[in-house]
Amino acid sequence: MTDSTDRRRLRFEHRRGEILEAATSHVLSHGVGSLSLRRLAEAVGVSHATLLHHFSRREVLVAEIVDAAIAGALNQPDLAEKQGGEPLRELWARSRSPQGAAYVRLFIELTGIAAYGDAVVRDAVSRSMRERAQTMAAGLRRDGCPPEEAEAMAGWLLGAMRGLMAQLLVTGDEQSADAAFEDLHRMVLLRASSWRADGSA
Amino acid sequence: MTDSTDRRRLRFEHRRGEILEAATSHVLSHGVGSLSLRRLAEAVGVSHATLLHHFSRREVLVAEIVDAAIAGALNQPDLAEKQGGEPLRELWARSRSPQGAAYVRLFIELTGIAAYGDAVVRDAVSRSMRERAQTMAAGLRRDGCPPEEAEAMAGWLLGAMRGLMAQLLVTGDEQSADAAFEDLHRMVLLRASSWRADGSA
Repeated sequence: MTDSTDRRRLRFEHRRGEILEAATSHVLSHGVGSLSLRRLAEAVGVSHATLLHHFSRREVLVAEIVDAAIAGALNQPDLAEKQGGEPLRELWARSRSPQGAAYVRLFIELTGIAAYGDAVVRDAVSRSMRERAQTMAAGLRRDGCPPEEAEAMAGWLLGAMRGLMAQLLVTGDEQSADAAFEDLHRMVLLRASSWRADGSA
Repeated sequence: MTDSTDRRRLRFEHRRGEILEAATSHVLSHGVGSLSLRRLAEAVGVSHATLLHHFSRREVLVAEIVDAAIAGALNQPDLAEKQGGEPLRELWARSRSPQGAAYVRLFIELTGIAAYGDAVVRDAVSRSMRERAQTMAAGLRRDGCPPEEAEAMAGWLLGAMRGLMAQLLVTGDEQSADAAFEDLHRMVLLRASSWRADGSA
């Protein structure tokens, strides 16, 4: 092996993270369903050979992109700190922002891919669903939700939020989706007010 | 054109419905994401040429399969007649049956495909979401829900049901999904009891 090969390898290794970031951003815009390594290489601005050097197979790259995208979507520590039904409104508002909508769109596509048993994608989506449910259950408990109810409530509440996001994305009907969110939000606030009443009784 | 060509064409036309039914059943088991016409022809037991004769392009066949699958999933007239929170339990139970789960799985995959703008699939999924929301809103109004709230409530309630079904499918965690459903069901019954109290006041 020559010195020049070593130097090239070193440069490649440094570029790995950079390529993954560009690939994740490309996938957030276009999805993974129709992803080909050739088109991705073109979009990212590297050769097909370079992409293969770093990620060997499409599955390896997809797995890393999925992890990177989900980590990005979950990285909202300030959201968990809000109390009293406002995290829900904040979550809805963020899912409507261009950046938030891109994560929602990819997550919905990944859930669809997971449905027929792509194990890599299914594990990543499953992990993400569980982590989100735990974060939301912790928030509900801080708001006074009885501990034995918090996980169950977080389960359907997250389901409802994801369902509304999917409905908005597919139908494009903002008015219906917003009205449904407001009705859900009122119900959650009503239930939360009963916890405070119980607590002070 | 010979007589024998005419007869063959006639036989082909009769077979169209039969082929579509077999193709829909194949897709309910395997999804459409990885569907190739060659593999489908093999599974259905016809030649690739016969499939192309009837459906010309993959997109045409996929559109018809999606419509057939969604029509099958929506064809539950008895469900709409149940009152007082029980349609929800029935819907959950059906989504857990092998036949119901197959429809749920396909619908989740289709929603994912619709996310990046496949127009044919998106229109079919969007139509199905709107029809289901109208059916559920009508059921809620029959149960006493104020008419101006029924559509908004149906929107998030269907979202929650779809979200729970997706969560169960991806995580495989039946206990969490059932607990979340029971919590949701209790909240819906509680809200429904307030309609009856208002109505009799």
